[in-house]
Amino acid sequence: MTGIPGPIAPPPRLLMGPGPISAYPSVLQAMSAPLVGQYDPFMTATMTETQELYRGVWATENEATLLVDGTSRAGIEAAMVSLIRPGDRVLVPVFGRFGHLLAEIAERAMAEVHTIETAWGQVFPVSAIEEAIVSVRPALLALVQGDTSTTMLQPLDEVGAICAKHGVLFYSDATASLGGNAFEADAWGLDAATAGLQKCLGGPSGSAPITLSDRAVEVIRSRAKIEAGIREDGDPDAADFVRSNYFDLGMILDYWGPRRLNHHTEATSMLYGARECARVLLLEGRDAVIERHRLAGAAMLEGVRGLGLEMFGDIAHKMNNVVAVEIPEGVPGDAARAALLEDFGIEIGTSFGPLHGRVWRIGTMGYNAREDAVLTTLVALEAVLRRFGAHVPAGGGVAAAADVYRSG
Amino acid sequence: MTGIPGPIAPPPRLLMGPGPISAYPSVLQAMSAPLVGQYDPFMTATMTETQELYRGVWATENEATLLVDGTSRAGIEAAMVSLIRPGDRVLVPVFGRFGHLLAEIAERAMAEVHTIETAWGQVFPVSAIEEAIVSVRPALLALVQGDTSTTMLQPLDEVGAICAKHGVLFYSDATASLGGNAFEADAWGLDAATAGLQKCLGGPSGSAPITLSDRAVEVIRSRAKIEAGIREDGDPDAADFVRSNYFDLGMILDYWGPRRLNHHTEATSMLYGARECARVLLLEGRDAVIERHRLAGAAMLEGVRGLGLEMFGDIAHKMNNVVAVEIPEGVPGDAARAALLEDFGIEIGTSFGPLHGRVWRIGTMGYNAREDAVLTTLVALEAVLRRFGAHVPAGGGVAAAADVYRSG
Repeated sequence: MTGIPGPIAPPPRLLMGPGPISAYPSVLQAMSAPLVGQYDPFMTATMTETQELYRGVWATENEATLLVDGTSRAGIEAAMVSLIRPGDRVLVPVFGRFGHLLAEIAERAMAEVHTIETAWGQVFPVSAIEEAIVSVRPALLALVQGDTSTTMLQPLDEVGAICAKHGVLFYSDATASLGGNAFEADAWGLDAATAGLQKCLGGPSGSAPITLSDRAVEVIRSRAKIEAGIREDGDPDAADFVRSNYFDLGMILDYWGPRRLNHHTEATSMLYGARECARVLLLEGRDAVIERHRLAGAAMLEGVRGLGLEMFGDIAHKMNNVVAVEIPEGVPGDAARAALLEDFGIEIGTSFGPLHGRVWRIGTMGYNAREDAVLTTLVALEAVLRRFGAHVPAGGGVAAAADVYRSG
Repeated sequence: MTGIPGPIAPPPRLLMGPGPISAYPSVLQAMSAPLVGQYDPFMTATMTETQELYRGVWATENEATLLVDGTSRAGIEAAMVSLIRPGDRVLVPVFGRFGHLLAEIAERAMAEVHTIETAWGQVFPVSAIEEAIVSVRPALLALVQGDTSTTMLQPLDEVGAICAKHGVLFYSDATASLGGNAFEADAWGLDAATAGLQKCLGGPSGSAPITLSDRAVEVIRSRAKIEAGIREDGDPDAADFVRSNYFDLGMILDYWGPRRLNHHTEATSMLYGARECARVLLLEGRDAVIERHRLAGAAMLEGVRGLGLEMFGDIAHKMNNVVAVEIPEGVPGDAARAALLEDFGIEIGTSFGPLHGRVWRIGTMGYNAREDAVLTTLVALEAVLRRFGAHVPAGGGVAAAADVYRSG
């Protein structure tokens, strides 16, 4: 470094990719609120208040509803490493990259991992999941709700009952979907679910909301271990302990719960941000926010169709908040994305694995699930497509999208 | 929840405990900067720039200097789980609570853990560490630099050479000390060191700076595993993989390095905050910041002595940034702390384990390593001590502290 740089000064961006997305202005504002001490009455009250707000977001009465201090992936690992005993059988239905991730995290947690796979762009019929459960007899089913790599939304509403019938713990990663699509932790029988802020919740990455059923908490409690420096006589000390301190949800629960036993130092600014994400969602209303995502997603879908683009995957099962479009023949995908970013300050997403170079992913999430964001993206995309030689109907995107907004 | 609460509105606090402490105003400001995409050229440039800033903070040329997305404890676990193979012998000299924490994290990482202990309030002579290394022959020495539980600062400057001589990897947790006390990663022969923002770096908890020597990177690289969803032919896939995905520093290095291989979604706001913490430190100058901490710490020490309080521990080895004082006979420790918080908005710290109820810990860190913060704390503490019946020399604290500032 030749000199010390100036204060951070990010360029203006309209983030219309698969996430992270532009945060709600009030969330950014909350991030800069002054800090308080770890056991300040205001701090512990804010933690408790944030738990209650997230019960509203998850549609749950689970006492064990809290935040893991890390990105959405930290939430996934905390859930899995706390619930999986080494050697446990874990079933992961894989319909995109994040299914592979769950399998990989389970493998690192020393589980015996079984996967079933379906083609990218599809989801599983519930019967296929039940068949696999019967055949594998896992301790845990780990199932992504919305996989941004394919944009698909796996229906979960009947899965919990099947898991309960077969005595299987049911975990879902709702990182990409929560807040923009229905998620009913209690009604759907979830034992554990995790998310992140950087998608439909409209905040920065770095805090992972999590909720756990009583049954999940019981499994976690049975593995309790309290660290030597603060252990007292009579505290549990299981041999079958969780192979992580940071992600041991039992300890994190003791920190968030009435015992307030010191664990990590809660990430105060991320707590403030996470609280504000939930607060704006509940102020607008959970159903209203989902409906806003549905409308923005439908408008974006019709808009890109109006530009003559083809969709990827089973549209009937796509998430509200992201659409995958085939890159038109002859258009250089990365150069076109770069032009959109440089000339218009708009970001859309590339893709992973088998879809790389073949589709773009366009998101409408959180704060950006708005008509002006949708229409601005469509006019800019039209300009860029034309610049790279694609034949696009003039104004076709914006007209189709506006129609969706007019007809609701 | 009967209603939805308003925006976050923390009470004003002067945080003079052992951390977390009040953040630099410019750090809070950076936390609310607008977000950009994960692979935005501005984002990747900011990551690279932040790495270079932290090389300055750590006094290192290590290429592998980066942030772990989580609190300081996440940084510790990332270092240990990535460096320790199950069954490896790990030596942890314990001189306070955080030594116990390192031992516990090593145990969770399935190490064969050996500890040596000294009384709380003391540090180890380097000869005791070498003797233990010779006797245990560990793969890794894990040593806290500054343990806030006792306020002691373990001298590290000769430890690296001993580790090198015996072929032992040398890791230090500098969470509580970095920025307020000398730390020379390269000159002292560190293989790994981790910290957090919430102490002398003057930021919020939630991001863990880490630096790794080439030797440490080699160990980590030898255990490489790339997740199935994004693995390409020829990528490594070690059987001896790290038992965590989130904390696998090999993958985190591939995300921060030129390959930019997707791992977690970097916590953008925390990155902005971490960058600003390093930036303000280097703008003021690393040595100047340490000197400011030395001066504030000396002033606070003389100040509490001027109030007639006794110190805990071997003062010759205390950290610059925190002092432990015996709670005077007859003064109810927690009630007095609560009065300080409620009446003056000033937080000082309680203690863990054997020191609980016996000492308070008073910090002078980061932004709060300032004369006005020291003097304000002392006048308020005097008032509170008097209110609880202690006999304190009127103005004795502030006079002694001001003297230190006048004589430098």
